[in-house]
Amino acid sequence: MAKAEQKVDLGAMRHSCAHVLAQAVLEMFPEAKLGVGPAIEDGFYYDFELPRTLIPEDLPLLEKKMKQIVKQAQTFVGREEPAKKAVSFLKGAGQPFKAELAQQFSEEGQKITFYENVMPGTGKPMFVDLCRGGHLEHTGKIGPFKLLKIAGAYWKGDENRPMLQRIYGTCWPAQKELDDYIFQLEEAKKRDHKVLGKQLRLFTFSPLVGGGYPLFLPKGAQVLETLSEYIMGVKKRNGYSFVRIPHVAKEELYIRSGHLGKYDAMMPVMETSEGDRYVMKPMNCPHHFEIYNSEMHSYKDLPLRYAENTAVYRNEKSGEVHGLFRVRSITQDDTHHFVRHDQIESEIEMILGITQELYEKFGFSNYKAQISVRDPEKPEKYFGDDKLWKRAEEKLVKCAEKWGHEYFIEQGEAAFYGPKIDVMVKDALGREWQLTTVQLDFVQPENFDMKYVGEDGKEHRPAVVHVAIFGSFERFLGILIEHYAGAFPAWLAPVQARIIPVGADFFGYAEKIYGQLRESGVRVEWDDSRDSLGKKIRNAEREKIPYMLVVGDKEQKEKNVTVRNYADKKQETMEIDRVMPNLFRHL
Amino acid sequence: MAKAEQKVDLGAMRHSCAHVLAQAVLEMFPEAKLGVGPAIEDGFYYDFELPRTLIPEDLPLLEKKMKQIVKQAQTFVGREEPAKKAVSFLKGAGQPFKAELAQQFSEEGQKITFYENVMPGTGKPMFVDLCRGGHLEHTGKIGPFKLLKIAGAYWKGDENRPMLQRIYGTCWPAQKELDDYIFQLEEAKKRDHKVLGKQLRLFTFSPLVGGGYPLFLPKGAQVLETLSEYIMGVKKRNGYSFVRIPHVAKEELYIRSGHLGKYDAMMPVMETSEGDRYVMKPMNCPHHFEIYNSEMHSYKDLPLRYAENTAVYRNEKSGEVHGLFRVRSITQDDTHHFVRHDQIESEIEMILGITQELYEKFGFSNYKAQISVRDPEKPEKYFGDDKLWKRAEEKLVKCAEKWGHEYFIEQGEAAFYGPKIDVMVKDALGREWQLTTVQLDFVQPENFDMKYVGEDGKEHRPAVVHVAIFGSFERFLGILIEHYAGAFPAWLAPVQARIIPVGADFFGYAEKIYGQLRESGVRVEWDDSRDSLGKKIRNAEREKIPYMLVVGDKEQKEKNVTVRNYADKKQETMEIDRVMPNLFRHL
Repeated sequence: MAKAEQKVDLGAMRHSCAHVLAQAVLEMFPEAKLGVGPAIEDGFYYDFELPRTLIPEDLPLLEKKMKQIVKQAQTFVGREEPAKKAVSFLKGAGQPFKAELAQQFSEEGQKITFYENVMPGTGKPMFVDLCRGGHLEHTGKIGPFKLLKIAGAYWKGDENRPMLQRIYGTCWPAQKELDDYIFQLEEAKKRDHKVLGKQLRLFTFSPLVGGGYPLFLPKGAQVLETLSEYIMGVKKRNGYSFVRIPHVAKEELYIRSGHLGKYDAMMPVMETSEGDRYVMKPMNCPHHFEIYNSEMHSYKDLPLRYAENTAVYRNEKSGEVHGLFRVRSITQDDTHHFVRHDQIESEIEMILGITQELYEKFGFSNYKAQISVRDPEKPEKYFGDDKLWKRAEEKLVKCAEKWGHEYFIEQGEAAFYGPKIDVMVKDALGREWQLTTVQLDFVQPENFDMKYVGEDGKEHRPAVVHVAIFGSFERFLGILIEHYAGAFPAWLAPVQARIIPVGADFFGYAEKIYGQLRESGVRVEWDDSRDSLGKKIRNAEREKIPYMLVVGDKEQKEKNVTVRNYADKKQETMEIDRVMPNLFRHL
Repeated sequence: MAKAEQKVDLGAMRHSCAHVLAQAVLEMFPEAKLGVGPAIEDGFYYDFELPRTLIPEDLPLLEKKMKQIVKQAQTFVGREEPAKKAVSFLKGAGQPFKAELAQQFSEEGQKITFYENVMPGTGKPMFVDLCRGGHLEHTGKIGPFKLLKIAGAYWKGDENRPMLQRIYGTCWPAQKELDDYIFQLEEAKKRDHKVLGKQLRLFTFSPLVGGGYPLFLPKGAQVLETLSEYIMGVKKRNGYSFVRIPHVAKEELYIRSGHLGKYDAMMPVMETSEGDRYVMKPMNCPHHFEIYNSEMHSYKDLPLRYAENTAVYRNEKSGEVHGLFRVRSITQDDTHHFVRHDQIESEIEMILGITQELYEKFGFSNYKAQISVRDPEKPEKYFGDDKLWKRAEEKLVKCAEKWGHEYFIEQGEAAFYGPKIDVMVKDALGREWQLTTVQLDFVQPENFDMKYVGEDGKEHRPAVVHVAIFGSFERFLGILIEHYAGAFPAWLAPVQARIIPVGADFFGYAEKIYGQLRESGVRVEWDDSRDSLGKKIRNAEREKIPYMLVVGDKEQKEKNVTVRNYADKKQETMEIDRVMPNLFRHL
């Protein structure tokens, strides 16, 4: 049916599907009070106040009714109504949420429109909704759809307003696209980092420690350590210096930076018995600025690049913390670049060059940059000289051009202190993640009165570039777990290889190889259980260990091992001396 | 004079010298009110309330008067007095502090004694002091002495009582010993880690961040990183796993551990808008216990060793923070060993073996252990079964025996939760530092209801061993700076080598070698200044860089470098390929 519609308006189709859902819900629950029903990325939802809580079994019933409506090819017919009439109609129809919206639209001076589903032939109105429009011609044009889940949602997102029931659905032009999407959803569920994190013993949470504060078990900590070492190596090769700061500061530091009282996520103040007021650092920049200011710098010293992998603390709401994706203790791969204004361009070029190297290492080959510049209509929102901004924005665009990857410009998305570049990467499931952020800053150098002595012997103001490449280690680990479905590449895997003796007779040989590989720095284990060979292999596979080194009679005699690869299950027999260079050459 | 007195009572001599100081001060300031004047390690002090603030120039004047008194060989004569008479005598003599002490002694039921300095021959009393005694026969027996410094000290150490002036002095049986001690003091002053830390750009402090919170500049952070990597390597080789925890926890965690409200140095509570109360972690053990408890363990999994180099936070008083020796953000090389009771001995043996390896690496060859056991008189002070304690204490002694270094036993020094071993090491100046601590703990396994499944299939309670080998990285870095006088060995030095071209003609060659060495992982710089060769060498020496690689015409032609060693100033010409294996073979 939908195959021919290559250029279908996905948003209109999904929004139309939401109307069909609402019509079906009203058939099932005539008392239902409607909230809103927008199209969203990959689908739609509709919110309802219902006489009872929905159960998963309701969804197929609703889908059946929806299919019926789609078959009927009801036309979408719009009309405008005067505000008063609209509000009183909606109130009379027992739709208080819609009536509230109509009232609000009228106060905002907006047109008020209704869209009606009309049965073809009879012309009978089947369903009417207060709605801004944007539908297909008729319900028959709606492609294959599926209802996905039920969730709670406060009316207008306000926790003081009623909690409604939200039904999520998805809708696509063709069955194959729907199938692919459902497959992707199920795949994502299987890859859920919270489930894999538990199964692979990577991290845990403790109610005594607090929500949003992950505790990393040895294997998770090992992955983080490898990530940290890797990025430190890349940065050192590129001329970064690492510094170290504490996790707290007096609130005076954040008065100087301007964050105190203006930064919602700051942890509350601790007041010591001596009357000093400390906060946990919500960001690292002011500490790094104090290091910069601890000595005088010459123009020849710049650019100076202070890097640190260190935790910042954010007072996130408990409803917003989520696995490793949103935590309260966030370890950033943070850097602050102190540059002369004539060095901005070359510095950002260098940074973008590094991002590329890093993404490819993890198999992210699809990425693009967003350049956030000023809103040209509102110059008063931004700090600093107009010409400085214009030059800086041009420089960022030039850097993105040279970088050679896709980029786009977003007006009005710049921070008040400078323009920025964010890089989004696509993972193995095609999901997009914002990773790297590169922010130019002209304000903090003023706040902290930063200086360097120029070639002219006079004092000048440097610019600062704030950069995090992974962003947060916790979130990046979460992304990687899902990207790799828990099967880390050997260089990153907490356990790189497990030696599996086919029986107890080969324990001695297994232990010998184990010693040899450990000595060479391989993260290796050996299985000294009395399990069968099959079970040993299944155990190693369940733990997603990249290489199994099976040893039995033949291997012992010939002084070699049979390497079994997790990824492709291929087996190859090789001498022990060849295991290291062969398997771990990318370490 | 003092040469013959080999077996002199140092304490009596120094206390006698304090009396002589007081007599000299009274000659200079007849209004002086005396505080206390004890012998201390390496010397003595005396506290005074004086009509004016002392200046350094006063010390030689006082020394001159003291020498006079020593020459006179005044005898020390003691007598007991009734309390009332003593108090009224002291009040009458204008000595309110001494009168207060006499009153206190009498209330405590102690004898009250005075010691008088009497001029030989005439029998004339020259000076009298309320004093418990312990003097030489006469002042003539006092060895060579020197007054060292003036400091402020509250009467009875109470900040609500008057601030007195304290004069520190030292006194030795022989001139050579005094000279050696003064030399050592001056050497220690030259090695002061606060001075060297600034000069070598290792760390800084910021008033905006707060006192006691060091900020490590790139070079200091590099040394810490090398230390951290080194100790992680040693621990991993010995079967430790590293974990990662946040720097905060709900106060519930410390209710469970029993620390809340009982641990003075805990940072104050932060209460979030959601009503959760968090504290900064003052120790890591409870977090590690929660990791242990996040999964079930079998007897075969033990010992489990969780290690982490992570910062704890202590609310130290501002008067108590001191350079890197006493900070508020303390990065510990912490480990928690979860062991079966039958593994305690072998585990502690393993730990002591590691300490040895670590100390030798830093050239600490002189160390001894203190074993802290229960006070047998007060069994009620200690938690847990008497037999358990007895066995554990015996095990510690056995471990120390096997370790083969000096040890001693201190009764009553055990914590209430278990006996412990502390190791003290002597640095290059012979100063003693307590580094390692190994604490057995039977209490926290109860508090946290820790378990493992034994060979019998039943649940058992493990024991915990708390271990920090360096203790605090900050303090250890401070000790190392003073131990090495800032000249770190090459493996630890922030910059291992600097290439010094004798002129601009050799910049190209210098840069080439620089690239080669960097590629091999050497922390190397090259001097591209236009300074003279002499100045370049002086600069590198001032920065205490272990190796200078000088290159000029001859070196360029012969494709080699002239290596100049910081430690012995020796020079040797060698091929570049030989530089790495020759100089950095201990990395």
